[in-house]
Amino acid sequence: MIGIEDEKFIRGKVPMTKQEIRILTLAKAKINETDFVVDIGAGTGSLSVEAARLAARGYVFAIDRDETAVDIITQNAEKFSIDNIIIIHSEAPAGLISVPRIDVALIGGSGGKLTEILNSVDNKMKPGGRIVINCITMQNLVTGLDWLKKREDYRYDAFQVQINRLQQVGDYDMVKALNPIAIVTAKKFQLKKVTTVISMSDAILKETIPLPVKKSGEKADGTK
Amino acid sequence: MIGIEDEKFIRGKVPMTKQEIRILTLAKAKINETDFVVDIGAGTGSLSVEAARLAARGYVFAIDRDETAVDIITQNAEKFSIDNIIIIHSEAPAGLISVPRIDVALIGGSGGKLTEILNSVDNKMKPGGRIVINCITMQNLVTGLDWLKKREDYRYDAFQVQINRLQQVGDYDMVKALNPIAIVTAKKFQLKKVTTVISMSDAILKETIPLPVKKSGEKADGTK
Amino acid sequence: MIGIEDEKFIRGKVPMTKQEIRILTLAKAKINETDFVVDIGAGTGSLSVEAARLAARGYVFAIDRDETAVDIITQNAEKFSIDNIIIIHSEAPAGLISVPRIDVALIGGSGGKLTEILNSVDNKMKPGGRIVINCITMQNLVTGLDWLKKREDYRYDAFQVQINRLQQVGDYDMVKALNPIAIVTAKKFQLKKVTTVISMSDAILKETIPLPVKKSGEKADGTK
Amino acid sequence: MIGIEDEKFIRGKVPMTKQEIRILTLAKAKINETDFVVDIGAGTGSLSVEAARLAARGYVFAIDRDETAVDIITQNAEKFSIDNIIIIHSEAPAGLISVPRIDVALIGGSGGKLTEILNSVDNKMKPGGRIVINCITMQNLVTGLDWLKKREDYRYDAFQVQINRLQQVGDYDMVKALNPIAIVTAKKFQLKKVTTVISMSDAILKETIPLPVKKSGEKADGTK
Repeated sequence: MIGIEDEKFIRGKVPMTKQEIRILTLAKAKINETDFVVDIGAGTGSLSVEAARLAARGYVFAIDRDETAVDIITQNAEKFSIDNIIIIHSEAPAGLISVPRIDVALIGGSGGKLTEILNSVDNKMKPGGRIVINCITMQNLVTGLDWLKKREDYRYDAFQVQINRLQQVGDYDMVKALNPIAIVTAKKFQLKKVTTVISMSDAILKETIPLPVKKSGEKADGTK
Repeated sequence: MIGIEDEKFIRGKVPMTKQEIRILTLAKAKINETDFVVDIGAGTGSLSVEAARLAARGYVFAIDRDETAVDIITQNAEKFSIDNIIIIHSEAPAGLISVPRIDVALIGGSGGKLTEILNSVDNKMKPGGRIVINCITMQNLVTGLDWLKKREDYRYDAFQVQINRLQQVGDYDMVKALNPIAIVTAKKFQLKKVTTVISMSDAILKETIPLPVKKSGEKADGTK
Repeated sequence: MIGIEDEKFIRGKVPMTKQEIRILTLAKAKINETDFVVDIGAGTGSLSVEAARLAARGYVFAIDRDETAVDIITQNAEKFSIDNIIIIHSEAPAGLISVPRIDVALIGGSGGKLTEILNSVDNKMKPGGRIVINCITMQNLVTGLDWLKKREDYRYDAFQVQINRLQQVGDYDMVKALNPIAIVTAKKFQLKKVTTVISMSDAILKETIPLPVKKSGEKADGTK
Repeated sequence: MIGIEDEKFIRGKVPMTKQEIRILTLAKAKINETDFVVDIGAGTGSLSVEAARLAARGYVFAIDRDETAVDIITQNAEKFSIDNIIIIHSEAPAGLISVPRIDVALIGGSGGKLTEILNSVDNKMKPGGRIVINCITMQNLVTGLDWLKKREDYRYDAFQVQINRLQQVGDYDMVKALNPIAIVTAKKFQLKKVTTVISMSDAILKETIPLPVKKSGEKADGTK
């Protein structure tokens, strides 16, 4: 099951996706056992570790441009005895070059290149693939939503989640806020092939003109 | 107007009620120009300073048991040239002894004695008075609600407020949560005097029994 | 995996735990394949259905006092071809009588009897068991926290979760709030048996004094 | 003071800015007694009414394109005996034509034309003016932030506010969420005129070269 406790991960000073957010992100990602998952802006690798357990016969490609992060991802993969994480020390989308295919993309950090990352991810993703974006800025959220709104082959849902943990202080429980995150989940669909149907009047049909054989997307003269 | 910027207050290491919460607290308190206001658990005195401006011909009694807080309240009162704040270095409700009457009570810190504080405040408050409690623990919130539910002469409304500030980082705005606060606002009402009416059958009335001594709300002849 | 879409459940007019809350509740519950799960105040049975998939070789006892709810749980169990849900049409804790043992308790509705429910659940729960309470009122939250604070054999964490869904309206995404829920997760532990060990010098041991029979908490002389 | 209770306004089916949001919006707007305020997308006029009380010797121009809204604003202005609201039945920014100057702009509904509205508002606003935008969509929020980020003569702060009201149900208080709002507050500043000062050594000054008359922004040779 998903939802490893935060304190079980090695963290250093790298920001970590918190347990509750990891749970929601992974549940929305609907990772299958043989999936190829990319974790872009992997940070501590906490999401990568949990994703790698779900994609037990697949792979998680953990991409981060920060050297300290790469170190800590390595340590966490070892700590949890995960052997199906491939760590890519690179910026995104550049680092995606070495990812053969993508079934699920988890996008955390995007270094100001979310549109380019989404384009690259999309190129390696077949219908049925899923993208889950965790946004901590309003601009990234809207950039992601804009990209998705233009794409007829993606459908998405999105929500903002705010977690307020109750910190036990003697007889009291103090409310302590975590920073809210917006989670956008998109699924790629097969676009229906639009078949052009030409209706003609009986009069025309009665004339025995040899009609052009027409396929979707072709021009009348048969070229594309 | 209410809503002084946070950075204009001297703070030290004393926790401060944030601008947005101050605005809501003061607006709900509906402080009049001649009101006597108590600010219990005054902290930096940020609420006291703003309350003192509203109660320009009244007084604010700022109570805090912490010496550092008392120092900082003093400094803030001076900084904002407020001369109608009376600082009481004491625990609550003990410190309320030297408050002659209360029109508005702002309750922040309660040191585990919210019920006692509410009892003491109530003793010095006439109908029309208002209490605004800011709660950072679930237990204090429920303690306050319980006290109010038992009192027929108080009506309250309550809400939890969560402020997520957008922090400007170059082209981006990152969402940063403040801890949520529950704000309970109560108003004291004049309980209607319940008039006892004794109905008697005509038969009894016709016997010339000496009629019972009349109570408030009855006409001289016993009818209404 | 957890997280069935809301619209796949039959709902009627019964309130339903929303997808995001179900995900968090189930992840925190850490349900094992052979677990006996009770879902108290099961409502539409959405949690029961998802729990029953996780406890594939165990059982889910779905308890609800409302007849309409019982109907809808039945329909949802059928719709998702679940055969390990046992529906108990009863109040809680009364309905718990027919539950042989509890590994995981999911407590939604409690009909004002949360303390009694927790006592009953605890009676049927061994160390290692987990309780997840979803609270929509402040009072139930504090009642649950109070019960847990008194129990040395339970440890808990708690958080409030607020989900704001983005509703797609043309080029825009409007923020629509779901009501916040507090989720309290508790785990039962084996209290360590305190065994008193008395060390004596060899010299004493060699004397064949008949040693007092000692119980934990007693002083050497047998008094407490 | 600000913060009229919601139920005191006539509402019909027009969406209304809730009390807590009105309080925060008005406090951030820092309306002065003689200000000219525009309320764009005025809805029920609840903000206009409260703004008109603050700008007691100024005016509030309440703009709404919806006829029902115009009716209800009229009714609310009458109910609260406000005589300094001028209602403009028009779209924005078109309706701004008849507004002579703007000290404070409150922007609620923007009908997809936030950028144009901000440009128009800015044209009628002097340094010292304030704009408060209430956003219910992510796109409008980012559009507003983008406009402000490009303007050196504006400084802004922004926050998202979530109000969860406690609804009294017998012994319980149920948490009911209002939809969250992002509030962006911007203030217009006087851009400092950069005055070029050329320092010359005494030696040079003693030579009686006729110095060029220099204006801000000109190069030494008098070109721009």
